Amino acid sequence: MLEELRKQVYEANMELPRRNLVTYTWGNVSGIDRKKGLVVIKPSGVEYDELTPENLVVLDLDGNRVEGELNPSSDTKTHLELYKAFPTLGGIVHTHSPYAVAWAQAGRDIPCYGTTHADYFYGAVPCARHLTREELDEDYEKNTGKIIIETFTDRGIDPVAVPGVICHSHGPFTWGKDAAQAVYHAVVLEEVAKMALLTRQVDPDAAPAPQYLQDKHYMRKHGPNAYYGQKK
Amino acid sequence: MLEELRKQVYEANMELPRRNLVTYTWGNVSGIDRKKGLVVIKPSGVEYDELTPENLVVLDLDGNRVEGELNPSSDTKTHLELYKAFPTLGGIVHTHSPYAVAWAQAGRDIPCYGTTHADYFYGAVPCARHLTREELDEDYEKNTGKIIIETFTDRGIDPVAVPGVICHSHGPFTWGKDAAQAVYHAVVLEEVAKMALLTRQVDPDAAPAPQYLQDKHYMRKHGPNAYYGQKK
Amino acid sequence: MLEELRKQVYEANMELPRRNLVTYTWGNVSGIDRKKGLVVIKPSGVEYDELTPENLVVLDLDGNRVEGELNPSSDTKTHLELYKAFPTLGGIVHTHSPYAVAWAQAGRDIPCYGTTHADYFYGAVPCARHLTREELDEDYEKNTGKIIIETFTDRGIDPVAVPGVICHSHGPFTWGKDAAQAVYHAVVLEEVAKMALLTRQVDPDAAPAPQYLQDKHYMRKHGPNAYYGQKK
Amino acid sequence: MLEELRKQVYEANMELPRRNLVTYTWGNVSGIDRKKGLVVIKPSGVEYDELTPENLVVLDLDGNRVEGELNPSSDTKTHLELYKAFPTLGGIVHTHSPYAVAWAQAGRDIPCYGTTHADYFYGAVPCARHLTREELDEDYEKNTGKIIIETFTDRGIDPVAVPGVICHSHGPFTWGKDAAQAVYHAVVLEEVAKMALLTRQVDPDAAPAPQYLQDKHYMRKHGPNAYYGQKK
Repeated sequence: MLEELRKQVYEANMELPRRNLVTYTWGNVSGIDRKKGLVVIKPSGVEYDELTPENLVVLDLDGNRVEGELNPSSDTKTHLELYKAFPTLGGIVHTHSPYAVAWAQAGRDIPCYGTTHADYFYGAVPCARHLTREELDEDYEKNTGKIIIETFTDRGIDPVAVPGVICHSHGPFTWGKDAAQAVYHAVVLEEVAKMALLTRQVDPDAAPAPQYLQDKHYMRKHGPNAYYGQKK
Repeated sequence: MLEELRKQVYEANMELPRRNLVTYTWGNVSGIDRKKGLVVIKPSGVEYDELTPENLVVLDLDGNRVEGELNPSSDTKTHLELYKAFPTLGGIVHTHSPYAVAWAQAGRDIPCYGTTHADYFYGAVPCARHLTREELDEDYEKNTGKIIIETFTDRGIDPVAVPGVICHSHGPFTWGKDAAQAVYHAVVLEEVAKMALLTRQVDPDAAPAPQYLQDKHYMRKHGPNAYYGQKK
Repeated sequence: MLEELRKQVYEANMELPRRNLVTYTWGNVSGIDRKKGLVVIKPSGVEYDELTPENLVVLDLDGNRVEGELNPSSDTKTHLELYKAFPTLGGIVHTHSPYAVAWAQAGRDIPCYGTTHADYFYGAVPCARHLTREELDEDYEKNTGKIIIETFTDRGIDPVAVPGVICHSHGPFTWGKDAAQAVYHAVVLEEVAKMALLTRQVDPDAAPAPQYLQDKHYMRKHGPNAYYGQKK
Repeated sequence: MLEELRKQVYEANMELPRRNLVTYTWGNVSGIDRKKGLVVIKPSGVEYDELTPENLVVLDLDGNRVEGELNPSSDTKTHLELYKAFPTLGGIVHTHSPYAVAWAQAGRDIPCYGTTHADYFYGAVPCARHLTREELDEDYEKNTGKIIIETFTDRGIDPVAVPGVICHSHGPFTWGKDAAQAVYHAVVLEEVAKMALLTRQVDPDAAPAPQYLQDKHYMRKHGPNAYYGQKK
């Protein structure tokens, strides 16, 4: 079942170490079949070189294991909350990539300092607040998802235009139309987080890019009149 | 047509990922045949491992596509402006290499702190100003070229002696006598941008190298009595 | 004798250059057979590509060489002190990995800024004080071990929950249930030290992660109700 | 002639790109045959993958070319001055490795913050002053050597105990008993320069390691009672 999706999610997971985004098992990718309402996700704590399309775990959106003998990623409930709240998401990634983690540990949004950022993230990448102790005790991973959703809802951010978030004292989640694009956004986020940190080293008071430049770059790639790339 | 130039521009494009200057498709190289008035440039949004000499795009200096079925790089008009204004240019490169981007995002010239810089760039690498909203709305990529030219003209900088620029909130463009040398200068600029940033971390008030030392290093490589390297 | 342990310690030593934790010979791994009271350790100053399971050195806990013709690591006495004081240790690693060294040279504990740290180290990674001149003159390597032990004892830190330390003006030691896990912790410590340094670059006044978040992450991996990974 | 020395100097040059110490041709290694009074050095501006033992250049100590058709490194006179002033030197290296350059561009000695440094450099790595305009005009490369020598003489530094220097606004030179050891010291210097810069990022007011700790580490490797490594 879901052979094609398993293959996609497997390939997307394997891209994480190839792109130097994970140390050991510190990352996971999932993908969803919206028609069937089923999610394929990396099993918990399994090394990347032991991963196969077959040992991925299949779950329904309530978290019931439908296929697979291994435990799913410990972050599974966070993925499920995001899939339920954001219907356009086809894939989700979590990593501990170091520059994105640095901003997350500092509890700061990543400002949009330039066009590299604006090409993929429309505005700052938001930093989601800490869970309260009560939220953590109730259900840590589920409420992590809830707080990401709250962040986007309260600030009026469109998760398609800003395909990622950093969680305070934790690290990044990114997403996309499928698992491959979610990983692509994880790579971009890490690169953008690095550039932003270096920018502050040149000038701690550096200002974000002018809004009209951010608009231009995002729109030439993603707007109705986008002209970057080839017509498909 | 232009078989030799296509090959050179192809090789120069492929050097970008080999030198770790680009993530995904974030860079492009062009080269010009001055006699024919034709420019060869990377197609927009095409992955480097799908690039061939044959799928490069050939344009005249007015931007008319002469050969090739793909759209040219979205930055094409910037390249064309530079070729028209600076007749000594044989190749141009644009990247989002992270250290050069950091200085660009901070909106600061890269000071000439030492001989590594002075060997290739005679004086600071200038940071071109933001486009105004009007300039951006009129023609973003063309006016990006115009503002680079304005920067060199207003400050009296010779584009042969300073073969590169960073654009505020954006990133670097470099150039050379051909596509290969333009890439060489892109590598040097990134290394010099990194060294300059590290220098400021040792001492935020570090001073540029003495002018006579800058003169000496530039001239021993490029002046009429240059003695670096082998006679050719 | 100790063929299996030799193999494990050999593999663990070879993992250090693979993980980019050592330059030249700047690191060593040991493992212990608790029943026999014997320690296997890297010989001093031997290049990793000349290392074999056979040229490792076997010592008893008093430092007497039981097998092997080469001198053991110059840090051997430090390893032995730790094995004697902390009976749960099965393997020990010393490196000069640069980010951990940076914190050691600054003489600062590495704060627990986030979940990457909390997943493996329960609280700050302590920085052990300088040896006095007297302690150094008496027995440098042995007293280095004694001061590490003093650090854990005086502060009431459990060496299982915090499987590593940095020594002021020197560098890190890590440990684990066996040589492989000790190396794993060396990799984690370097990554965590890097993230902590980057965090301070974003915000020099960044606060440690809330204690209840640290508790949660450590416990979901290591507590009696741990649910990370697969049951074994 | 000098077949063995040519081979050593060739191997030492090739080690520079392998250790990521040079970009393009930005580095050179020489070695000396003290009995014959002849120096073998890299030719100027030749790419490393075109280098062979045969195209190295042989010079006497007055700089007369004895063998080879290519021009020697543009830094040759600096090497020759150092060989003449410091009779224990068997090999010399110059690079533009970025962390050492950062300290050179900031014009600061690299403090001995810890044992990694103390194991190879006894005390701070000195930063040699700028040449005056007159010194530069007279003979840039020769006087660069003279000022390095002045630095060691005026400060009473033994070039065996401190096998390297950084030149203000320029970069590092290192040396050793032969070309291979000179490269080894170039690698160490870059690593030590990186660690020192990271240390200052943790604490800009970090103090050097206590003198008795510096003494201990240097002496356990290099003193008459050294006990690091294997007896030979």
